[in-house]
Amino acid sequence: MSGAVIDERLALIWMAHAAEPADRRVGALVREHGAVEAVARIQAGRSGLADEPGLRARLAHVDPRRALEQAAGLGARIVHRDGKEWPTQLDQLGDAAPFALWVLGAADLRLTMLRSIAVVGARASTSYGEAVARDWASAFASQSWTVVSGGALGIDGAVHRGALASGGMTICVLAGGVDVAYPRAHEQLLHRIADDGLLVSESPLGECVRRRRFLTRNRLIAALTRATVVIEAALRSGTTSTANAAVALNRPVLAVPGPVTSPMSAGCHALIRESGALLASAPSDVLELLEPLGSTMEARSRAPSRPHDALTEQQARVLDALPARGSSSTAELVRVAGMAVPEVTAALAILAARGLARPAGRGWEIVGRA
Amino acid sequence: MSGAVIDERLALIWMAHAAEPADRRVGALVREHGAVEAVARIQAGRSGLADEPGLRARLAHVDPRRALEQAAGLGARIVHRDGKEWPTQLDQLGDAAPFALWVLGAADLRLTMLRSIAVVGARASTSYGEAVARDWASAFASQSWTVVSGGALGIDGAVHRGALASGGMTICVLAGGVDVAYPRAHEQLLHRIADDGLLVSESPLGECVRRRRFLTRNRLIAALTRATVVIEAALRSGTTSTANAAVALNRPVLAVPGPVTSPMSAGCHALIRESGALLASAPSDVLELLEPLGSTMEARSRAPSRPHDALTEQQARVLDALPARGSSSTAELVRVAGMAVPEVTAALAILAARGLARPAGRGWEIVGRA
Repeated sequence: MSGAVIDERLALIWMAHAAEPADRRVGALVREHGAVEAVARIQAGRSGLADEPGLRARLAHVDPRRALEQAAGLGARIVHRDGKEWPTQLDQLGDAAPFALWVLGAADLRLTMLRSIAVVGARASTSYGEAVARDWASAFASQSWTVVSGGALGIDGAVHRGALASGGMTICVLAGGVDVAYPRAHEQLLHRIADDGLLVSESPLGECVRRRRFLTRNRLIAALTRATVVIEAALRSGTTSTANAAVALNRPVLAVPGPVTSPMSAGCHALIRESGALLASAPSDVLELLEPLGSTMEARSRAPSRPHDALTEQQARVLDALPARGSSSTAELVRVAGMAVPEVTAALAILAARGLARPAGRGWEIVGRA
Repeated sequence: MSGAVIDERLALIWMAHAAEPADRRVGALVREHGAVEAVARIQAGRSGLADEPGLRARLAHVDPRRALEQAAGLGARIVHRDGKEWPTQLDQLGDAAPFALWVLGAADLRLTMLRSIAVVGARASTSYGEAVARDWASAFASQSWTVVSGGALGIDGAVHRGALASGGMTICVLAGGVDVAYPRAHEQLLHRIADDGLLVSESPLGECVRRRRFLTRNRLIAALTRATVVIEAALRSGTTSTANAAVALNRPVLAVPGPVTSPMSAGCHALIRESGALLASAPSDVLELLEPLGSTMEARSRAPSRPHDALTEQQARVLDALPARGSSSTAELVRVAGMAVPEVTAALAILAARGLARPAGRGWEIVGRA
């Protein structure tokens, strides 16, 4: 679509197709000149980048407007840096931050990620690790924490299943496109995550998994979440790269110990002994680190629940006040629910975080009735 | 034996019978006035101690000369604070240091304890903990470290067995008298330790195990050794008291992680998370902390061995030079072995540390031919 007029939003999405994730030189170009000008410079051969020919060729193959249509056709969306759903904590990645993310699922990415924990681990997991992954993910999810993992075989799969089993919110950050079922054995699981949670990727639709993308994906998992919990990991494995990315971002890393006779706990033990990871022996060790004591105690007394089961009376009233079709302004909601403006606003934020409501036009709309 | 003339050595042994272990007030009295004068003051009712009547009554029941004879009759000995075999690291306990120790076994207590590691753990151990205890004790013992534990059921027993199996030196610090087989189930094991290693206690012969003595015994294990390794421990258990005693003495504490689902690893995890214990996932984690890298590498290349198998050629020559009966001066050994004085002196220290030779009169004698 060379020659067509584009805005910054389209240019970011365009660049997200052309640039390799975490390429800091392209990131710096966009930071300095904006995405529209960066695209123009690459097209005109004056970006100064070493791999300009490759970038130019990839830009020529992509029409960002068609990419938006293609995503919409699959029920997905492209969330870009300047959009409302952008998780602003990704800005901490600096020039390595993504330009856009592909998202599949109803919940609001930014709001659900505000209260999120990464739980990751080895593909070649043990039954011990899988049991811990499942139990801890359930515990986090049932206390209204979004549980983020990578969808891989082994620990990641057990993490997503545990969160789903307790009716909580889980997000899978993929290394390939959100429409590419990888690993194949997790096709059903990924569908369930798209239905009840979110699939997220920095890779465009249809993009197959490439080795390098696992490492850049791991930095995203670390950057999106408040803390990273490592359940099982071999020494010097991909999992420890997620932990190292979290350390680099000053996010807490917690590692779960296991038998010293298990090679799949060796990476966790090394993280504790050598990388300053905290030893976590129960979900409460993680939650006490992230939450003030009072709120943890309150959360603990709640039973595990689906997102809409755990709503307060006020949140439920605002949810009821939303029309079945179309949207309502905050002023209308204040009137219908019979509540004050700050209460309604607070309730809407929680409803959005749970994927039950979302901003629409100048008001709010319901995402789906359970 | 009131009225009899006694020397400081006898007075210390006498006091070791009368005072409760780790009684700092009696310790302060002896530090200020010496043991002879402390005994005299207690007998005369002018010690100023609150429990003076009890101390006086217990002194009246003991004849320290007969205690020495009684020990010799059992093949045991009483090592007092001013003696050559005293492990001077116990002085770090200050006024809580013992006055004397009962010792059963051939090796020199001070020399064997110079290079010693405490390895302790729960009585209600798991098969995982017992396997780690056995393997690690073997690893330490086969690298010429004296392995010290408490002789209890569970982890302690596995520790002693592991050290014995690799032909190494192991020392059991008992809460009761060295002639009291406690626990009964370890009677055979304790005999083996007395044969190949040492039984040590602060309690006089015949003294039965009392609850309080376990805690005071634990401080001895921590104070005698260079580091304390905790294999398995429940939360707030006797084992963690040994670890806390080691921390108080600035000795390194290392804890072995295990499954977070095991209550017997919970104490270890708490020590790492809350008490600054180091996570140890292999024997090398302990040895690298205690030894300069070079010496560890050298030690690692040695095969597991009985004390006298691991002797260097020079040490073996000095051992051969010792007469079968009676003793030899260092000068005679230099002549017979055909070695220099510093070489002979160094060899004698190692032979003593392995329980193969000991000082006798103004020279050295052999302890036993294998």
